[in-house]
Amino acid sequence: MSTMRAVQVVGYHQGLQMAEVDVPEATGPLDVVVRIGGAGVCRTDLHILEGQWAEKSQVTLPYTIGHENAGWVHAVGSAVTHLREGDKVILHPLVTCGLCRACRSGDDVHCEVSDFPGIDTNGGYADYLRTTARSVVKIDDSLEPSDVAALADAGLTAYHAAAKAAKRLTPRDRCVVIGAGGLGHIGIQVLKALTPAEIVVVDRNPDAVKLALSIGADHGVVADSTHVEQVLELTDGHGAEVLVDFVGEGGATAEGVAMLRRAGDYHVVGYGENIDVPTIDIVSAEINIVGNLVGSYNDLCDLMVLAARGQVTLHTQKYALDDFATAVDDLDHGRVRGRAILVP
Amino acid sequence: MSTMRAVQVVGYHQGLQMAEVDVPEATGPLDVVVRIGGAGVCRTDLHILEGQWAEKSQVTLPYTIGHENAGWVHAVGSAVTHLREGDKVILHPLVTCGLCRACRSGDDVHCEVSDFPGIDTNGGYADYLRTTARSVVKIDDSLEPSDVAALADAGLTAYHAAAKAAKRLTPRDRCVVIGAGGLGHIGIQVLKALTPAEIVVVDRNPDAVKLALSIGADHGVVADSTHVEQVLELTDGHGAEVLVDFVGEGGATAEGVAMLRRAGDYHVVGYGENIDVPTIDIVSAEINIVGNLVGSYNDLCDLMVLAARGQVTLHTQKYALDDFATAVDDLDHGRVRGRAILVP
Amino acid sequence: MSTMRAVQVVGYHQGLQMAEVDVPEATGPLDVVVRIGGAGVCRTDLHILEGQWAEKSQVTLPYTIGHENAGWVHAVGSAVTHLREGDKVILHPLVTCGLCRACRSGDDVHCEVSDFPGIDTNGGYADYLRTTARSVVKIDDSLEPSDVAALADAGLTAYHAAAKAAKRLTPRDRCVVIGAGGLGHIGIQVLKALTPAEIVVVDRNPDAVKLALSIGADHGVVADSTHVEQVLELTDGHGAEVLVDFVGEGGATAEGVAMLRRAGDYHVVGYGENIDVPTIDIVSAEINIVGNLVGSYNDLCDLMVLAARGQVTLHTQKYALDDFATAVDDLDHGRVRGRAILVP
Amino acid sequence: MSTMRAVQVVGYHQGLQMAEVDVPEATGPLDVVVRIGGAGVCRTDLHILEGQWAEKSQVTLPYTIGHENAGWVHAVGSAVTHLREGDKVILHPLVTCGLCRACRSGDDVHCEVSDFPGIDTNGGYADYLRTTARSVVKIDDSLEPSDVAALADAGLTAYHAAAKAAKRLTPRDRCVVIGAGGLGHIGIQVLKALTPAEIVVVDRNPDAVKLALSIGADHGVVADSTHVEQVLELTDGHGAEVLVDFVGEGGATAEGVAMLRRAGDYHVVGYGENIDVPTIDIVSAEINIVGNLVGSYNDLCDLMVLAARGQVTLHTQKYALDDFATAVDDLDHGRVRGRAILVP
Repeated sequence: MSTMRAVQVVGYHQGLQMAEVDVPEATGPLDVVVRIGGAGVCRTDLHILEGQWAEKSQVTLPYTIGHENAGWVHAVGSAVTHLREGDKVILHPLVTCGLCRACRSGDDVHCEVSDFPGIDTNGGYADYLRTTARSVVKIDDSLEPSDVAALADAGLTAYHAAAKAAKRLTPRDRCVVIGAGGLGHIGIQVLKALTPAEIVVVDRNPDAVKLALSIGADHGVVADSTHVEQVLELTDGHGAEVLVDFVGEGGATAEGVAMLRRAGDYHVVGYGENIDVPTIDIVSAEINIVGNLVGSYNDLCDLMVLAARGQVTLHTQKYALDDFATAVDDLDHGRVRGRAILVP
Repeated sequence: MSTMRAVQVVGYHQGLQMAEVDVPEATGPLDVVVRIGGAGVCRTDLHILEGQWAEKSQVTLPYTIGHENAGWVHAVGSAVTHLREGDKVILHPLVTCGLCRACRSGDDVHCEVSDFPGIDTNGGYADYLRTTARSVVKIDDSLEPSDVAALADAGLTAYHAAAKAAKRLTPRDRCVVIGAGGLGHIGIQVLKALTPAEIVVVDRNPDAVKLALSIGADHGVVADSTHVEQVLELTDGHGAEVLVDFVGEGGATAEGVAMLRRAGDYHVVGYGENIDVPTIDIVSAEINIVGNLVGSYNDLCDLMVLAARGQVTLHTQKYALDDFATAVDDLDHGRVRGRAILVP
Repeated sequence: MSTMRAVQVVGYHQGLQMAEVDVPEATGPLDVVVRIGGAGVCRTDLHILEGQWAEKSQVTLPYTIGHENAGWVHAVGSAVTHLREGDKVILHPLVTCGLCRACRSGDDVHCEVSDFPGIDTNGGYADYLRTTARSVVKIDDSLEPSDVAALADAGLTAYHAAAKAAKRLTPRDRCVVIGAGGLGHIGIQVLKALTPAEIVVVDRNPDAVKLALSIGADHGVVADSTHVEQVLELTDGHGAEVLVDFVGEGGATAEGVAMLRRAGDYHVVGYGENIDVPTIDIVSAEINIVGNLVGSYNDLCDLMVLAARGQVTLHTQKYALDDFATAVDDLDHGRVRGRAILVP
Repeated sequence: MSTMRAVQVVGYHQGLQMAEVDVPEATGPLDVVVRIGGAGVCRTDLHILEGQWAEKSQVTLPYTIGHENAGWVHAVGSAVTHLREGDKVILHPLVTCGLCRACRSGDDVHCEVSDFPGIDTNGGYADYLRTTARSVVKIDDSLEPSDVAALADAGLTAYHAAAKAAKRLTPRDRCVVIGAGGLGHIGIQVLKALTPAEIVVVDRNPDAVKLALSIGADHGVVADSTHVEQVLELTDGHGAEVLVDFVGEGGATAEGVAMLRRAGDYHVVGYGENIDVPTIDIVSAEINIVGNLVGSYNDLCDLMVLAARGQVTLHTQKYALDDFATAVDDLDHGRVRGRAILVP
């Protein structure tokens, strides 16, 4: 096969289009070409089509979209010795240099010269994708690429925040999770696997709270006018040692800070509004506001171990690659339960 | 001697008054009565007189003011065996319980039931002060109580922030200090002693910048319209790994965040304005905003070691206790260079 | 009641004797008198009777033995405000000063002037025991003192080592546990609660291995001539990132080091033989050998949370206090399953 | 130029020989060819000639020796964009893969598939050396390759141990350094730059102790029959919080453990004898024995910053490359002060 299908952005404020393009080749020594088994359809994809990323990514149109990818190794460059054709893999969303200080410190997400397939170069809504050996994580035989693809970015972000939050949590501590949606319900499962702390989940949606309780939350609070008070009651009146905010808008940050104990950590994951807190409050309660980006390569390796054990699962709704327009439309209109996945 | 001098708050929006009161006694088993050798006059004392602390402290008037104290042990309670009359000491500003989780974790500043002499109970503008063994730090013979008293609170706060900031700093890192005034110039000396990082100091006052350079700063930047740019130039265009903000008002926080590198730590010490940052910026640069309160008992012990070695020094202007009104007035009108100290 | 029963050491190399002694009173301000609900019978008690601790403890005979105690608060000193008569409690084995650097750092086990009831002062084989507020941990209403008493020392040691080991463990790591006996089977439960790592348990006793698998171990290895090889096979041929050795004799340490990966941590808990390793091996594999003593007050608080949730349980065999001789004899002759507990 | 000089091992138990060989080329995409400016002559080179490394390294003779190298970039592979001809550089001693878990964690020294130029492949006693971009550290213009070459391995090992030791050191702590020779005197300078702790140096040689005091040690102890006692006196009778042992033979380890405080860290750097300590001592004092290998790429970057500031200096004795035999002979007979460097 020398050509393949690829769903491309051909212009902003217009639909994606299927194209026939050349199958990429492993020309560089560390290149890896992956046959796509599943590509997550993400809200970021909708934002790309609205042109929100145009200036930041500086991508040249047309290009192939799709940044949550898993599949099988198809071809490898001359210097790749630890992967072979047929290996089942998931792809870290970034292609990093391996040479800058961040990469040399295991903190590859802050690589100074990274690419982001699906955002600023060709992604995975296609039969094949080219990446490099530094982005490829082998997965357990028990896992299917189309089941785990959405863990490559959304799930990885939730893992990263939960794992950072878990570092200080002991059995006596309480961790509040704001938001039990896409990222939040992964975060809750990760917290359950990584920490002995009590987990309190807050969400506006009673069904999301019910789901949270079924996957490991110790307490669920439906956000209404009394939820801050309810959380304080569940935490001795003083608030939680740690809070992970997967929402970051609609007043979540102010409420979140009000649920935080002295010397507590407030993890920001979701975004939208401003953090707007008097410095005197930050100082007198000695709290920390902690940013969280997507996880590192190591985080993805760890997450795949939890997935292989069944400790982190994700509900997916699968579409054939040719039905990409339906998938995007369903996501845009709130008709997807869990994550939409394109399967070539 | 059964009575002593004590400078008291007798009402808000009026002057302090000298009173004759009983010398306190070591009635409790862990009590320690200290003969005051020096009591720092602090801007907080002015705020107390303006009534800003009345509601928060719930103190009953009249009471003796003064929360930065050092001197000699005068008497000890029945259970105190490691201190004896005549020991030279400095006092941690808080009287803590020793039994709550925070105290049991070395984090006594977050004690659930602490007192704060000079703020909510009798302080050190007096001949004697009663505290407990948990607040007393023995100091080296080479130090004079009147020289180090101001390190008990202002200096301790600067030490705490600098020591927390230092934990991640390596020789390749840069630490920006905003503000080289009272706390800032202690912070710079502590950073110099504790970390190999390059120190960049920013202040509006050219004399403060000059002082900063003389006590260990590697680069000084006078804050004008170009100081953010200058700091970026000094830090490879990417900003500093760590920033300690001793100002916290007048736009310092927005400028500070702009000087911060990806994955950087922003330490808030000074306060006044709001931290007001888009969550998307916190997330995409993955920065941390870190609150800093006064230091712990352990921090004060460490700071006194640096003071004994001459690695942290403080300019003081001394007044006799009877001249308390002049000292307060000089501070209020900007006539004090360094810190004003009352000496009984 | 003004007198009580107390089982005492009256001489070495002879039996314990029941005595009638005064009920202790809360004379000191921080004293707490506890009505004993359960006192663990420990192998250390046998060693005390053999005189092995005589020189080290310098205790004056006769005195009351028993260092694993739980019960109800009976009386408190004048300065104790957070405990009241009837509170259900477990006692940290050490009575610490609260003032030395170790105590001020949350590291109270290294207190410079601690007492050890049951070892160097009166312990808990009695109706009542006097300790201080610093040693008392309130427990959940769902727990019974006689069920948890043995967690006060043996269990606390296992908790401490497991919690230290857990700090670096991620889902990809493997933790080998040598010894699934008294301490080991607590340690396995704690590791399971605190860490996502894979747990591999090695023991000579097939029943102990079976028990280990039933309480959370992922792999069990019966120690025979091939167990080092088996562990290496379970760990990619390279060994485990972390190992916790609850045995420390009979060749366990040399075998343990052979099961350890480069940059791995070897936690010593059990003792008996020497660690005897070439420095070249320590350097070239860059391994760490980590000592573990009993846990801190904070560790005991955390352990009691796990116990209240049922995440750590302990099999006990109860004896009336008057049957102390039978209990000690049963322990000495290997007739106790789990831990023997005296119940007054 | 198509051929160059190279000093080679042609057989064990015989002298090195000068050969004329091809200048290496940057054939691989990440290859870097360096024009050697200085190559350290190390005691390990003597051991290589004695055949001590033959089995471990599996190197095929003849090959070029020399593992401490610095110089200028001569040519780069097609994928190297951050280095250019003429850049002044020092070389990390290992060539690492960048893909294994250790490399991805910033812990490249534990790379699963590394090469070691000068040990198991061609090294730097030559006009040119081929390595990869992952091993190249740019150095400040103020530094000369021949001055810093010996920091590439010996100095890097000392830096790594000192930096690890420094992590827990506060102003109140004491760090004992055993051995102020080649590695030790670098370690002392690094400790001085990185930590506020008091530094106590022990060495048998009074001149080495004198040197130690001149470069930052706070106390010097000449090792005689009373040195353990002297160190205990300098540390309140309890021993030091941290000890770094650059000797590791001749009884150093037993003496070192005796100088260590409860909960102290014993860093092993030098090697020769066995660590032989009763497990009961490790447990009851809760001490840690910490292995230390050569430093990481990041460590070398940090060390070069200290060198550029003049905070770490090294005495060197330079020889022309053609005088290699004299250099090796001088080292073997103790005629080198500081480090011998070959300069092509």
